[in-house]
Amino acid sequence: MEKYDDQLEISNAQLLLALKNGETKVFRKRFLDMHFYDQSHFYLSLEQPQREQLYHVLDAHEVGDFFDTIEDDLPQMTDLLAEMDTQYAADMLNDMFDDNAADILEHLPKEDVDRYLSLMGRSDAIELRKLLHYDTETAGGIMTTDYVSVREDLDVGQALAELKREAADAETIYYVYVVNADNLLVGVLTLRDLIVNDSHAKLVEVMTPNVITASVHDEQADVAQKIRDYNFIALPVTDDQQKLVGIITVDDAIEVIDDEAQSDYSGLAGVDVDYTSENPFKAASKRLPWLITLLFLGMSTATLINHYESLLSSASILAVFISLITGTAGNAGTQSLAVAVRRLAVNGENKPKILRLVIGEVLTGLVTGVITGLTVTVIVGIWKQNLALGLTIGLAMAAAITVANLAGSLIPMLMEKLGFDPAVASGPFITTLSDLTSVLIYFSIAQVFIRAFLN
Amino acid sequence: MEKYDDQLEISNAQLLLALKNGETKVFRKRFLDMHFYDQSHFYLSLEQPQREQLYHVLDAHEVGDFFDTIEDDLPQMTDLLAEMDTQYAADMLNDMFDDNAADILEHLPKEDVDRYLSLMGRSDAIELRKLLHYDTETAGGIMTTDYVSVREDLDVGQALAELKREAADAETIYYVYVVNADNLLVGVLTLRDLIVNDSHAKLVEVMTPNVITASVHDEQADVAQKIRDYNFIALPVTDDQQKLVGIITVDDAIEVIDDEAQSDYSGLAGVDVDYTSENPFKAASKRLPWLITLLFLGMSTATLINHYESLLSSASILAVFISLITGTAGNAGTQSLAVAVRRLAVNGENKPKILRLVIGEVLTGLVTGVITGLTVTVIVGIWKQNLALGLTIGLAMAAAITVANLAGSLIPMLMEKLGFDPAVASGPFITTLSDLTSVLIYFSIAQVFIRAFLN
Repeated sequence: MEKYDDQLEISNAQLLLALKNGETKVFRKRFLDMHFYDQSHFYLSLEQPQREQLYHVLDAHEVGDFFDTIEDDLPQMTDLLAEMDTQYAADMLNDMFDDNAADILEHLPKEDVDRYLSLMGRSDAIELRKLLHYDTETAGGIMTTDYVSVREDLDVGQALAELKREAADAETIYYVYVVNADNLLVGVLTLRDLIVNDSHAKLVEVMTPNVITASVHDEQADVAQKIRDYNFIALPVTDDQQKLVGIITVDDAIEVIDDEAQSDYSGLAGVDVDYTSENPFKAASKRLPWLITLLFLGMSTATLINHYESLLSSASILAVFISLITGTAGNAGTQSLAVAVRRLAVNGENKPKILRLVIGEVLTGLVTGVITGLTVTVIVGIWKQNLALGLTIGLAMAAAITVANLAGSLIPMLMEKLGFDPAVASGPFITTLSDLTSVLIYFSIAQVFIRAFLN
Repeated sequence: MEKYDDQLEISNAQLLLALKNGETKVFRKRFLDMHFYDQSHFYLSLEQPQREQLYHVLDAHEVGDFFDTIEDDLPQMTDLLAEMDTQYAADMLNDMFDDNAADILEHLPKEDVDRYLSLMGRSDAIELRKLLHYDTETAGGIMTTDYVSVREDLDVGQALAELKREAADAETIYYVYVVNADNLLVGVLTLRDLIVNDSHAKLVEVMTPNVITASVHDEQADVAQKIRDYNFIALPVTDDQQKLVGIITVDDAIEVIDDEAQSDYSGLAGVDVDYTSENPFKAASKRLPWLITLLFLGMSTATLINHYESLLSSASILAVFISLITGTAGNAGTQSLAVAVRRLAVNGENKPKILRLVIGEVLTGLVTGVITGLTVTVIVGIWKQNLALGLTIGLAMAAAITVANLAGSLIPMLMEKLGFDPAVASGPFITTLSDLTSVLIYFSIAQVFIRAFLN
């Protein structure tokens, strides 16, 4: 793989030279021979003056081809479009697969969207407006209308001929959708089916009638999971009248699966890992909101400890174990949160019952709490030669872990019930909340047992 | 989508009835009409007696078809194979795509593997042994040898004819690999290319000569990323002599991308979220190793605080802020860890320089630390009417956050350098370690300033 990367680097240097020297023919030949992804990589490595040269050397269609492989939420996307001639940018968006074009338009200011759409053909603009209309995180929001469908009364040979005509514009030609006169989806054919069957066979005889579909309103995560489960290359999307309106391809499913995983990961960490910055001030500005919010929650814990100051001054040994108890409970709560969030991400009939999940986590907390508590009782009992103190710490730890597991599982459940993403209940939030409950448990128990361990 | 699920449930109930009543013909017709994934879903919902009925009704080939869609690391896989007739199990494994069969065999005891392989045809067994030989997390470990390749001297029509012959056994026929007489890969054709070009065109004229490949030794994560970047349906794999030995299909890339994300997520949480159990004892047994290990690390923090007991007894107010400082630094360290692990996951030329990343995180820690420290100085100063105390807490917090960011970025880097998965540096580990450093910083600073704030 490195070999290819090395060659690519040399090739990119030669390309840049050709572009700078105005060797249009050399540049075009070399550039158009590259994979679209490598083209976009080269393009994104250019400075603005070279990019502007490139727009003169390549037509909008050729630029659109590789724009299909650029992430739609690229921060500088607005600027890239703005530096193109407006008609050129509109043509390029029009030439892209419409799901990718719609994804880019979604991130642009409304007036830019209107301007680009007004410069496209009427039917293309209508098509794109329709896609923009769907919620971005639904099947409608990620589907493309660039699919191939054929009428059910054709035979295999006719379908193949139709496919050849549409091949240039379709995002995939490996699945062909069979519709009736009302555009209702009645079957699906793979290109494999078309190749291996006799060209005079009727489509209805060779198609799979039992088509798995998504509705335009389905959540993108569910749709991606379906594509993954069934190993599909594309999944058809139908509207409320069961009419075929688009398809979702496997490359979009990968993006969705990865986005969802990144968002869970970011939630657990309390920081958006998708938008990292090398600039410490920018990076800090992304992290401070959570940290400062949690600082205030942490202040409640400090206030609570302050409330027990007379207890602490009569038994300063208690201070020694504060961080051990809050820390261990926080660790247990984080585990519980992670398991709950992952289990809630499961869809369909395997989705866990909420009450059952919380009870399971509390029981798990009880088991881990008792074992961890016993361990710490023995350690502290021996270290401080004080079994009563050991028991106090052990009991507090067992209770704190159980409560942390309750919080770690219940809070994401409540989030989900209230319609929020359960992953928003971040790890740092759970540990900070668990600090508060752990301290409360610890000092309440210590207050009861203080006579025993101060002897 | 619900509609399909509902229909499936009814259909599954009818299937079960047909199976129980021995209505073989009805069962077979209905079952074989289903998607493989739905077949496996039905199969996995059966009890053992029904499964044994099913092995009598379906042949090994038909069972192999849906076993391709079952997760290879299913805990009960060994039992499922053991309950089949041994020859039947061997035939079934032989009929599966060989990457999936190899994945199952990898999880079986060695004597089972040998038994099944000895019951297969010699060449099939050799093929599978070769796949088993590769490290599971490399391209060789996830590739299939069920691909279609054609010789470079054919024309489009001949290639299509070859494709039709091989279609039944190949995992994908959408990419056809073009090799020379030495089996060196010289080009790739999509089925789209074959369909749209004239059947008399020479392959060398219509193929893409610039093939992107993986080496058998490449890490699976890099290969999956390549498939994703280029929107491929499959990527060819070559051996050290540049000979084509297999392909990796997009469905495997999805599994890899998801597995890697789950493993990062599990690392951050300090618990393997892939193997969750409803049984509290089993679940606890998965979580306790981390918790108990970290408990001992936490004991160092307790010992450290114990070391400062005289300081604490003369200024018990210090105990009030222990959890605030350790908690906030732990939150910052978790953010830093998550960002570092994600940035290390990037491959190729975008991979960050380690030193630069650590310095960036420390600077980010400094900025967040100073702002958070100032905030807490003001809050504590006003609350306790004691600016010196506020400054002590604020200074300690700023330093503790900076050090937590250092640990959160440096530790995964070191892991990576030492050849471990950086995600193993779990969130709980970083927070527990950060407790230790935070307490040390806090009490060191407090000792210096104690005269000022006790006035």
